[in-house]
Amino acid sequence: MKMYGNWRSAAAFRVRIALNLKGIAYEETFIDLDAGDQLKPEFLAINPQGAVPALFDGEGPPLTQSLAILDYLEETHPGTPLLPADPRERARARSLAQVVACDTHPLYVPRVRTYVMETYGVPRETMLGFVRHWFGRGLATLETRLTQEPGTGRFAQGDFISHADLCLVSLWIGTGIFGVETQAYPTVRRIAEECLTLDAIAKAHPLRQPGAPKP
Amino acid sequence: MKMYGNWRSAAAFRVRIALNLKGIAYEETFIDLDAGDQLKPEFLAINPQGAVPALFDGEGPPLTQSLAILDYLEETHPGTPLLPADPRERARARSLAQVVACDTHPLYVPRVRTYVMETYGVPRETMLGFVRHWFGRGLATLETRLTQEPGTGRFAQGDFISHADLCLVSLWIGTGIFGVETQAYPTVRRIAEECLTLDAIAKAHPLRQPGAPKP
Repeated sequence: MKMYGNWRSAAAFRVRIALNLKGIAYEETFIDLDAGDQLKPEFLAINPQGAVPALFDGEGPPLTQSLAILDYLEETHPGTPLLPADPRERARARSLAQVVACDTHPLYVPRVRTYVMETYGVPRETMLGFVRHWFGRGLATLETRLTQEPGTGRFAQGDFISHADLCLVSLWIGTGIFGVETQAYPTVRRIAEECLTLDAIAKAHPLRQPGAPKP
Repeated sequence: MKMYGNWRSAAAFRVRIALNLKGIAYEETFIDLDAGDQLKPEFLAINPQGAVPALFDGEGPPLTQSLAILDYLEETHPGTPLLPADPRERARARSLAQVVACDTHPLYVPRVRTYVMETYGVPRETMLGFVRHWFGRGLATLETRLTQEPGTGRFAQGDFISHADLCLVSLWIGTGIFGVETQAYPTVRRIAEECLTLDAIAKAHPLRQPGAPKP
């Protein structure tokens, strides 16, 4: 498969993990988001939304939106399942994933940060407060649910890795990038660290991709 | 089934439509979001995120996050499918749904509007500019994709209603509530109006629920 992504994109990270866990060979083209390459005509012809990831599976139109791509990979490559078999457990894994992918991550992507800074004259430093606030809300929801709900196991849903973990670890990585306080979220940390022991996830890590800042 | 929702919630609207289309009997309890009832301990015990919808299917933990609920209903009630059978078509329907449910709707929910108004001293009237901006981005993405991509038919994906339409019509209804300009989006309008001719959708309309303002 052929993917358009970016080292820093949490959404591209989720898709890289799924491809690695399922053993699907892929090449990634890294779009320079800081240079605005996602808004150039060549890329808008691939995804009119101007967002990564976009994934080509052979010929045919690109797949977009990370959760839709994860479901597509699940349906077309059911080996190494990344959702449980039971419908209620699947729903819980998806719900936890969506706490990140719907209610948290879209609030701090570059297009939102830029709009808030330009529209309200918010300096870059103050903007970090906005980003950290929404990280905190997402992390607090995950922590509460993971500690209160009986479905939690070694991973977010039971003892096998699922879409919930792919989203959780993609959020966790961002806490380092944006300097988010994390001590109130020990269960999120435990699961993120469990995820990062897996080679398929460690290899997909944003800081190990081309374009990432050197440590 | 038993649902906790709200007349105005776009996410609750999507779930009501799916329940109606699949012929699943349900009762809805309407949470007063303006009074902050979603943040009271009784409701936080149901959904620690303090968000609607939450759906109970018999005994057992509540289902949360509208897209996760839609997939659960699809898996447990496959009659009247709301996703196509082909994986690529399913992925496109889900991707269009997520343009709304991940990248548009979460940006204008009450918790975000309140945060921006309080943090940056933005008056309520100016806040509408923020809301309309993100509506416009979402609507423009849908319009471009629906006109350029060959998958569009009578509905957003082909000639049968899918999750893409449930999300599209839930966004469309909001354009009236928030006074969003819509003339640049004729294809979105055509599909939304097609949806609203269906009794299952008309019955689920926000303005027909208890608590909605009288016309």
